Amino acid sequence: MGSTPYLHLDVEVMQANIDAMAEHASRHAMTLRPHVKTHKSPAIAELQLAAGARGLTVATIGEAEVFASVCTDLFIAYPLWVDEDAAARLIALGEAGVRLRVGCDSLNAGRNLVGLPVEVLIEIDSGHHRSGVTPETAGDLAAGLAARGLSVLGVFTFPGHSYSPGSGQSAAVDETDALRAAATSLRQAGIDPVVISGGSTPSASFTTEVSTELRPGVYVFGDAQQVELGTIPIDQVALTVVATVVSHAGGRVICDAGSKALAADRAPWASGYGRVLSEPDARVIALSEHHATIAWPGDLPALGSTVRLIPNHACNAVNLADSYQLSNGEVWPITARGRNN
Amino acid sequence: MGSTPYLHLDVEVMQANIDAMAEHASRHAMTLRPHVKTHKSPAIAELQLAAGARGLTVATIGEAEVFASVCTDLFIAYPLWVDEDAAARLIALGEAGVRLRVGCDSLNAGRNLVGLPVEVLIEIDSGHHRSGVTPETAGDLAAGLAARGLSVLGVFTFPGHSYSPGSGQSAAVDETDALRAAATSLRQAGIDPVVISGGSTPSASFTTEVSTELRPGVYVFGDAQQVELGTIPIDQVALTVVATVVSHAGGRVICDAGSKALAADRAPWASGYGRVLSEPDARVIALSEHHATIAWPGDLPALGSTVRLIPNHACNAVNLADSYQLSNGEVWPITARGRNN
Repeated sequence: MGSTPYLHLDVEVMQANIDAMAEHASRHAMTLRPHVKTHKSPAIAELQLAAGARGLTVATIGEAEVFASVCTDLFIAYPLWVDEDAAARLIALGEAGVRLRVGCDSLNAGRNLVGLPVEVLIEIDSGHHRSGVTPETAGDLAAGLAARGLSVLGVFTFPGHSYSPGSGQSAAVDETDALRAAATSLRQAGIDPVVISGGSTPSASFTTEVSTELRPGVYVFGDAQQVELGTIPIDQVALTVVATVVSHAGGRVICDAGSKALAADRAPWASGYGRVLSEPDARVIALSEHHATIAWPGDLPALGSTVRLIPNHACNAVNLADSYQLSNGEVWPITARGRNN
Repeated sequence: MGSTPYLHLDVEVMQANIDAMAEHASRHAMTLRPHVKTHKSPAIAELQLAAGARGLTVATIGEAEVFASVCTDLFIAYPLWVDEDAAARLIALGEAGVRLRVGCDSLNAGRNLVGLPVEVLIEIDSGHHRSGVTPETAGDLAAGLAARGLSVLGVFTFPGHSYSPGSGQSAAVDETDALRAAATSLRQAGIDPVVISGGSTPSASFTTEVSTELRPGVYVFGDAQQVELGTIPIDQVALTVVATVVSHAGGRVICDAGSKALAADRAPWASGYGRVLSEPDARVIALSEHHATIAWPGDLPALGSTVRLIPNHACNAVNLADSYQLSNGEVWPITARGRNN
């Protein structure tokens, strides 16, 4: 127990979450390649690998450098723009024996990959409208990259529009349709899509066909967003921020965890800035850097008592801390915290 | 120049901001005690002290431990709940020669301060409705704390309701009224309010009387919130996140700085998740952990080019990074990053 606020991790709940997703992927004959940006912890990645994950997904070269210590099969699921510095780092990873896959959504970005020890997955926009080409043009891009000597392994997408209440299933349908069309487009261009990769935590349970690979991240912990999206019940949340009640001013509950511990995420549909594990009806209704103001039903928790707050978005809360305090008494470092480039 | 995204700091703009606030405080005969939670950098605190700041404001004991290296007059402007661990750390700071002030808004919290090397400021709620007692009850609390042997130095407030468009001046009026009433309440209880402390960046320029001390933080850098609140013009923003354009998918501009570089802050009145220094009409309209989607007027910046993004909230963006890349080529560490307890 350190001074509050600190990150608390229930290892039994986390293990159950890890096992459940591994079982889902296995049942539908998909490879599970979890996104480790959520936990940034090689030790947790090892638990995922032990449960059956094949390879890991990372967001940045910096994360790849950290997770190379526990896995030599890494996918940087990002449309990298590779400059000289980034090229040198990718070469070093290759020389260290890491099999690297990277994302690409343009010929211009692909040109920078020529000669590097990477395989390429074409990024598809399946409805989130962020990066990624349209499914129908995936074959053209793949052929263009292959003509420049790149090894194109397949296609991937992130169905991020699953992050809206009631959208998990429809986003999974969009994802499946887009990946199917993209795979067809690659075949028409003469390229075999060996890897067809998708997945997000809210949509993962609805993804059962076409994809060869799933890349969910948040499922390992759960968070208030997943509770409000209906992905999980509140007792399946493994990660909380332990905070102390410091003030009852005006009959309010003020805790010492603010946006520098919980992160400031609040989707338009979220009911607040976070929740309380023990009180499903409580809400964090305001958040400063070091204060959470909580609307609390019934008797207020005493000054000096601790409460376990559930962040809206686990990934961003984790990236603020240096370690996890585990329910078994251990302390695990968040090794890749801040490795965001 | 490191890999993007990274924090860039224009030292000339920052120095002008530091000088302007010091001049304002001096003109109105107030002590400037800047809040260093914004920059978390002892080197920047030294610039503020050189420009006339008397003492520093911090949010946590951890920040006090870091800033004790450059200043021995620190105010932890927070209603601390002091347990055994925190007490030991406060004693160590006292033994290191630091003059410590701490906030308090209840007798219960005050009991934990008895015997510690701290002076106390009563926290007042001036309209932000977070922690703090009502101005009229400040004297009762001060007398209760003094009766337990604590040294009560005065009163403080944070007029955080200044963070709404057009509210800077009215929040300053609320602040002045509340501090005046609280000071009167202390005098009626037989306690001389030597320190009457207020200030926030949006309200600071309107605070010209009653307060003996100003504690703004964000003014040192500025951010997109301050631009949209009308506190500063966009060219007075010193801190940006340098990002690379990685995708033009769908005619969009996607950069490699997301909520793990800019932070996820978005006030209800904000026009987006951040701005672009060179393009006042551009807006970050969506933010993932590693993607900013930018609505860009006119010709899109080329793939691979860099842009300077302005975070909505500088304090939270700083707390995500390990260093500043200065415009003069130096690299300064963010020493107190993560020292949030």
